[in-house]
Amino acid sequence: MFNTRTKIKTLLAQEATGQEVIVMGWVRSFRNNQFIALNDGSTNNNLQIVTELGLLDENTLKRITTGASLKVVGELIPSLGKGQKVEVKAKTVEVLGDCDGEKYPLQLKNRPSLEYLREVAHLRFRTNTFGAVFRVRHSLAFAVHKFFNDKGFVYLHTPIVTSSDAEGAGEMFRVTTLPLDNPPRKEDGSIDFAEDFFGKSANLTVSGQLEGELGAMAFSDIYTFGPTFRAENSNTTRHLAEFWMIEPEMAFYDIEDNMNLAEEFIRYIIRHAMENNREDLEFLAQRLAEEEKQLPQDKRSEMGLIEKLEFVLNNNFERITYTDAINILLDSPAYKKKKFQYEVKWGIDLQSEHERYLVEKHFKKPVIVTGYPAAIKAFYMRMNDDGKTVAAMDILAPGIGEIVGGSQREERLEKLVQRMEDMHVPVDEMQWYLDTRRYGSVPHAGFGLGFERMVQFVTGMGNIRDVIPFARTPKNCEF
Amino acid sequence: MFNTRTKIKTLLAQEATGQEVIVMGWVRSFRNNQFIALNDGSTNNNLQIVTELGLLDENTLKRITTGASLKVVGELIPSLGKGQKVEVKAKTVEVLGDCDGEKYPLQLKNRPSLEYLREVAHLRFRTNTFGAVFRVRHSLAFAVHKFFNDKGFVYLHTPIVTSSDAEGAGEMFRVTTLPLDNPPRKEDGSIDFAEDFFGKSANLTVSGQLEGELGAMAFSDIYTFGPTFRAENSNTTRHLAEFWMIEPEMAFYDIEDNMNLAEEFIRYIIRHAMENNREDLEFLAQRLAEEEKQLPQDKRSEMGLIEKLEFVLNNNFERITYTDAINILLDSPAYKKKKFQYEVKWGIDLQSEHERYLVEKHFKKPVIVTGYPAAIKAFYMRMNDDGKTVAAMDILAPGIGEIVGGSQREERLEKLVQRMEDMHVPVDEMQWYLDTRRYGSVPHAGFGLGFERMVQFVTGMGNIRDVIPFARTPKNCEF
Repeated sequence: MFNTRTKIKTLLAQEATGQEVIVMGWVRSFRNNQFIALNDGSTNNNLQIVTELGLLDENTLKRITTGASLKVVGELIPSLGKGQKVEVKAKTVEVLGDCDGEKYPLQLKNRPSLEYLREVAHLRFRTNTFGAVFRVRHSLAFAVHKFFNDKGFVYLHTPIVTSSDAEGAGEMFRVTTLPLDNPPRKEDGSIDFAEDFFGKSANLTVSGQLEGELGAMAFSDIYTFGPTFRAENSNTTRHLAEFWMIEPEMAFYDIEDNMNLAEEFIRYIIRHAMENNREDLEFLAQRLAEEEKQLPQDKRSEMGLIEKLEFVLNNNFERITYTDAINILLDSPAYKKKKFQYEVKWGIDLQSEHERYLVEKHFKKPVIVTGYPAAIKAFYMRMNDDGKTVAAMDILAPGIGEIVGGSQREERLEKLVQRMEDMHVPVDEMQWYLDTRRYGSVPHAGFGLGFERMVQFVTGMGNIRDVIPFARTPKNCEF
Repeated sequence: MFNTRTKIKTLLAQEATGQEVIVMGWVRSFRNNQFIALNDGSTNNNLQIVTELGLLDENTLKRITTGASLKVVGELIPSLGKGQKVEVKAKTVEVLGDCDGEKYPLQLKNRPSLEYLREVAHLRFRTNTFGAVFRVRHSLAFAVHKFFNDKGFVYLHTPIVTSSDAEGAGEMFRVTTLPLDNPPRKEDGSIDFAEDFFGKSANLTVSGQLEGELGAMAFSDIYTFGPTFRAENSNTTRHLAEFWMIEPEMAFYDIEDNMNLAEEFIRYIIRHAMENNREDLEFLAQRLAEEEKQLPQDKRSEMGLIEKLEFVLNNNFERITYTDAINILLDSPAYKKKKFQYEVKWGIDLQSEHERYLVEKHFKKPVIVTGYPAAIKAFYMRMNDDGKTVAAMDILAPGIGEIVGGSQREERLEKLVQRMEDMHVPVDEMQWYLDTRRYGSVPHAGFGLGFERMVQFVTGMGNIRDVIPFARTPKNCEF
């Protein structure tokens, strides 16, 4: 048995009474051949190890370099130094693994940039920034499960590989075992997908919603939390080819119930992170403030990160209709000064610049927009009585834009089939989906939350590549 | 706002004092034009709705068919009938969605078989069996997150699409956006993957372990819980092309620590299901017992489902070495009577028949086998001092076979590189992985648990296709 240590986060919270402790971790710094700052990833706070002069031989002293791993046995005592309440007076220090400072990528650069750290993503977890980001990400993910579990939702693992291409949410990746070099062909020369692994053409899912609805029609409330894929050639700070999405789907819900749940949900997971990751968030707030110092005054956030999160916890989201949104935009100084690049009129899909204006300039808080024109929304959204808008809702967040997209679903069979035909969705292939409207259909609703955008919002990280362990983007599939 | 109902599971636990309640759900049965059994998926237990004669008009009575959805307002009163403590005396009954009994697939067959229900997997959630299975699956998944969260592990979302093909765990699916009809080719005629979405050949992951190790070298303890893929043409009751796997990876762990954690983990999630899904498990135990009545006596389980789970909770797993296992097999009556199909000698990969003998006949409990021959195990497993076995561990469970595979990892750079070269693993492409052994390497270990096999073990379902919402197997990718 090797795992006899206590984690540093636990030790830092203990009363120091000289008790013997075993700690293991990686060296963050070593000063005066005497003071080791040790980190084990349980917290960004290092544990100070004090080695009395003469305890360590020459060779060991040389091997205690930044990045090296140690096993230390010692006494936990009150610390006289500033910055920590306790420290460990070492009895023995064993080097478990060396780290050559002349080659260690994290040591070669002084304050490595986020861009550089993306190239060494396999090591960046060891920095304070990414330590904090991924502990917060963990915390948010756990809060997602706890929120839905406590409400009696069933976690449904909807399929990743699918032959359904009807959702129309975006470009898809093909999944195949056919040899690209020389795939089997039918008599007419076309590819013979009957020979493929699944016996038909298959893709990576763009959304688990349609399958989620099948679950909701039995369990009432379900949610998904899994990877989704878009083969879009978007090189932006907000797009990934592979990202994680949370999609709850609720029977007996209308659009208002849907909004209420989404708002409660977002607030719940933020509160969970605030309560469980305060130190990490304070570190990230500090990081963001320093980053923004390099921006001109008018580009800086009006609120600090912690302030922004507290604001979201303590204020209801603004709720407006799409028609309201268009009118606000048309009335805005930005519009009158022709500052918008894209046209503003009823019927347009709101562009990023419009969403940002509404959220960051006009309301200065998260906004839920409902009642979008049917023509710009998916076939499964419920037609409103006006016959031209649907019961869609998007939640827009400051700095991020769309963070949630949802709707009440069209539960009326005839209207749904009509919409599918109008939008050229293949009705025949979707009979399984339509069965939910044939056999005990009920009003129901759901939404999707892009998990990485949520992590961006909570951590203040500007680039979505920095909130997922290993980003997949066009021409990038490393590690 | 539509969602004003109380869930049936909640109502069934309330004191009935004539309070007004609103319930919504689907009709399971309607007797004597008076007694509706209503289910909303929160539990298999139906709520009895009593409608007094005359309350409902002729038309409504006709529409209350199995599968139809209702909104009922009424008083919660003590029930005189057997089988329930409370019932609802209806004031109003509104049919939300009809269900045509002459077409409803679940009603067309009397006691539909599991095979038939696989064909209507979009509706099978509505049956008692699958209601129970997927609530238990949810509960186990939540317990996974809670177990690791409470121990300070970081949930790491390792990538699904990967260009790494070094793990060697099995056949892989290609992920591509190239046109199969006419893919771009290089001058030499080979496919030009530089033109593919990721700029290189990409596949679906077979394991998140290697990336998980990167996380463990920073956070100490991480776990993954995500989909993994095998393009193997296996049509068995234990194989899926797409399945969910849990892979914890722990720094400062040796093989014994690894076994201890795996055993604690399995017991924890089973206990969680036993405490939170007792009714569902009792239903499934009953189902299994009935199914087994059709088997000859000697094929039936010696223990009932609940009994088996309690046995696992209350007894340590047997721990033996691979060499012990071979000796037990060689000494067995089965071997002497030549009942094994496959050869038994030191060096073989244990076959399913061998594993079952050890677990079901010899020890009659879960068994952890360690110290496998290096030649049959993966390159990253730590070489033991004997130079011929590795610190691998497999956990074998009654009725399922291998449920966990894990190992202490080879943390010594030179030995790891040597093994990779011996096994023809491309060392050059794996420099990122080897960096963990260059910069502060530490003893570490981890394991993978196939989630669906665990769900099979806990629910007693014989076919793995029946414990995942929508199974992906050769030639099958429906819904």
